[in-house]
Amino acid sequence: MSSTTFMSPEAALEHWQGHRRLTRRVIEAFPEDQLFSFSVGGMRSFGEMCNELLAMAVPMTEGTVSEAWGSYTPGKATSKSALLAAWDADTAKLSALWPKIPAARFADTVTAFDAYTGKLHDLFLYVIDNEIHHRGQGYVYLRALGVEPPPFYERG
Amino acid sequence: MSSTTFMSPEAALEHWQGHRRLTRRVIEAFPEDQLFSFSVGGMRSFGEMCNELLAMAVPMTEGTVSEAWGSYTPGKATSKSALLAAWDADTAKLSALWPKIPAARFADTVTAFDAYTGKLHDLFLYVIDNEIHHRGQGYVYLRALGVEPPPFYERG
Repeated sequence: MSSTTFMSPEAALEHWQGHRRLTRRVIEAFPEDQLFSFSVGGMRSFGEMCNELLAMAVPMTEGTVSEAWGSYTPGKATSKSALLAAWDADTAKLSALWPKIPAARFADTVTAFDAYTGKLHDLFLYVIDNEIHHRGQGYVYLRALGVEPPPFYERG
Repeated sequence: MSSTTFMSPEAALEHWQGHRRLTRRVIEAFPEDQLFSFSVGGMRSFGEMCNELLAMAVPMTEGTVSEAWGSYTPGKATSKSALLAAWDADTAKLSALWPKIPAARFADTVTAFDAYTGKLHDLFLYVIDNEIHHRGQGYVYLRALGVEPPPFYERG
C-alpha cells in the first residue's frame, strides 16, 4: 500500500455500505404512517429525504463509471416497503459499480451531474456525508415520535 | 499516487477541517440561551453534543500520535463563547497533530481509548461521522427554533 493512502477504495465502499445498512435500519424503525408525513420545524419527512439520497448514491456512481450524467431524479417511493426495495436494489448496484471506477480517478477533478465540480473523492464523500446528515435528522424525528433509533455505532 | 488510494491523508484532514468549519457556523447560529438548553424528543442540547465532539477529535488524534490513551473527558463548555474557543483551539491542534501520523498506520488495526478496536481510518471516520450526525441534529433544533441553518454544502 502506498504511504500516501488514508484508505483504499475497497475500504471506502465498505464504509459507505456500513452507513447504508444503518440508514436502512432507521427507515425500518419509522412507523409506516409517519415515514412520509412526520417532520419537525417545517422540514421534509424522512421518507422524502431518503428519496433524495436515492437520487445521489447510484446516479453519482453510474455517472462516474459512464461519464454520462443524467438529470437529477429523486426517488419516487411513497411507502416504507417501496423505499426499502429501492434502497436494497441500489445497495447491490453500488457494490457492482464501485469496482469499475479506476482508483487513479479518485483524486481527479470532475464535474458531477454537469453541475458540481470537485475532486472525485470529495464528491463521493459529499454523498455519504449527506446521508449521515439526514439520517441524524431522522434520529431526531424518531426520538420525537417516542421511538428508540438503532445504535449509531452498529454498521454490520 | 498509488492506484490503491481513495484519498490521501492530507485530503482527509482538509475534508475534516471543512466539516469543522461548518460545525462552527452551526454553533454560532444558535441563540446563546438555547445552545445548552433546547432539545427535541428528550435528547441532549446541541452544546452538550459539541462537548462530546471535543472529547473525540483531538483526543483520538493525540492518542494515535502518542499511543497513550487518556480517559474519556467531555468538553466543559457551558457558553457559546467558551465552546467556540475550545473548538478553535482544537482545530489548530488537529492541524498540528495530523501530519505526525505516519500514513502507513491508517490501515492498521488499533484499539483507541483502550476500548474501540478497528482500522485506524475507520476510527477516524467514526469521529468525523459522529460530528456530521450530531450536527444534522443541530440543524433540526435550529429549524425548530425558527433559525435558518448555514448551507450544508459550504465548507470553506
